[in-house]
Parts: sequence; C-alpha cells; structure tokens
Amino acid sequence: MSKSKGTRAERELYHLLWDKGFAVVRVAGSGSTPLPAPDLIAGKLGKIYAIECKTIKSNKKYMNEEEINSLNSFSRIFGATPLIGIRFARENWYFLNPDQLLKSKSSMVISKEFAKDKGLSIHQLLE
Amino acid sequence: MSKSKGTRAERELYHLLWDKGFAVVRVAGSGSTPLPAPDLIAGKLGKIYAIECKTIKSNKKYMNEEEINSLNSFSRIFGATPLIGIRFARENWYFLNPDQLLKSKSSMVISKEFAKDKGLSIHQLLE
Repeated sequence: MSKSKGTRAERELYHLLWDKGFAVVRVAGSGSTPLPAPDLIAGKLGKIYAIECKTIKSNKKYMNEEEINSLNSFSRIFGATPLIGIRFARENWYFLNPDQLLKSKSSMVISKEFAKDKGLSIHQLLE
Repeated sequence: MSKSKGTRAERELYHLLWDKGFAVVRVAGSGSTPLPAPDLIAGKLGKIYAIECKTIKSNKKYMNEEEINSLNSFSRIFGATPLIGIRFARENWYFLNPDQLLKSKSSMVISKEFAKDKGLSIHQLLE
C-alpha cells in the first residue's frame, strides 16, 4: 500500500472515531520509528485502543508478524487494547484483536470473510 | 518558539519517557489540527498522560487559555491526565497540571521558580 493511501485510511478512521465520541490522535512517524508505534490511539473515558489501520482492494490482507508483535508490545506497556482496523473495498471498517489472526506460513492473513465474521463493527466497538 | 525547537523538545521528552519505561507517541499535526491534540501521549500500564511540551530560554513561559482548554478537553474525553512538560534553559523537565497554572491577564504564565516549586520532576511523575 502506498504511503498516501495509508494516510487516507488513517485520516478516515481518525474522523470516524472522533464522530463516535472518541478522542483520537494520529501517531507521528508510525511505521518509520525504531520504537513501536500504532497508527492511531483512540480513547473514550479511559477505554484506550491502539490501532493499526489497513485498507485493501483485494480480498486478503497479509501482515507480517513483526508488525503484530510491535502493536502488541506497545499496547501492553501503554495499557491499551490492540486492534487492527481493516476496510476492504466497498465494505465498512472491521476491528480485530491480533490474537484472532490466523497464521499463514511466515505472515498473518486476514480475509474479507474472516473480518466480516470475526471482526467487530464500529458500533460493536462502542458497546 | 520555532517549529524545529518545539519538535526537538518533543523528541527529547519522547525518548526520556521511553527510557523511563513509558510507551510514548508523538502526535501527528499537534498544534495544526482543528481537533484537540496534545504533543505527546505517554502510557504505562494504564496510567496515561496527555502532554504539551514547552522549552523556553527566558524565565517565564506564557500559554494562551485556548491551548490549555484544548489539552483539558482532549484529556477529559480520552481518559488521560493532562500535563504541561516544561524545561527552562539548563534545568530539568518539570510537569505541571493545567489547574496549577496562574492566570496573568489574558494568558497563563509559568515562571521558572513556580515550575521548580510546584512541578513534578520526572522521578516524581514515575512514583
């Protein structure tokens, strides 16, 4: 995914979460610092989510384990719940916990069906 | 303060807090988004701080009320403790809660003496 597409996805989710009553920040240099950094952090009265944002045109998204480990490690220290926010073309956002992901050889894979079946919608996230 | 000096102060405090065991992010676009955004968010096992960073060469730092209100408002929604991290020339960092600040006409003022007297050091912050 190009950097600008990643930024667009981040901004989209950033505004969506503000609209839903969260206070949200986009993280400077996420994906380019040696220290772990999620794309977004959203909080609502102490319920804190560290979020990696993904948008994808095909029906399957591969993520490397390092990215998942980094999200988990940041979240554990910070005291946040780690989430992968994923949006497939012409679908809504779905939110998955890294623990839910299936391993495929050297990477983790999220299919559209899996995200829709196991992921939380934004409304479920708010409950 | 120039943008680059602000960024330098942010980076310095960012690394200092990582060294002290916090997970920290620098916030993208802080000071330039219409939505409230602190400079840094630091968390350690659920204890979350939203931080505005200031460095100053003179002995007094003025902050406008809008900046303080924005920090407070973000922190309230997110569920973080708001802090102003301030470092005067040849001094350590001190951390003040916005409620501690004294009002001077249309702005809030932090003198070096006040910061050293009322502010928490990084070690006190960790306790």
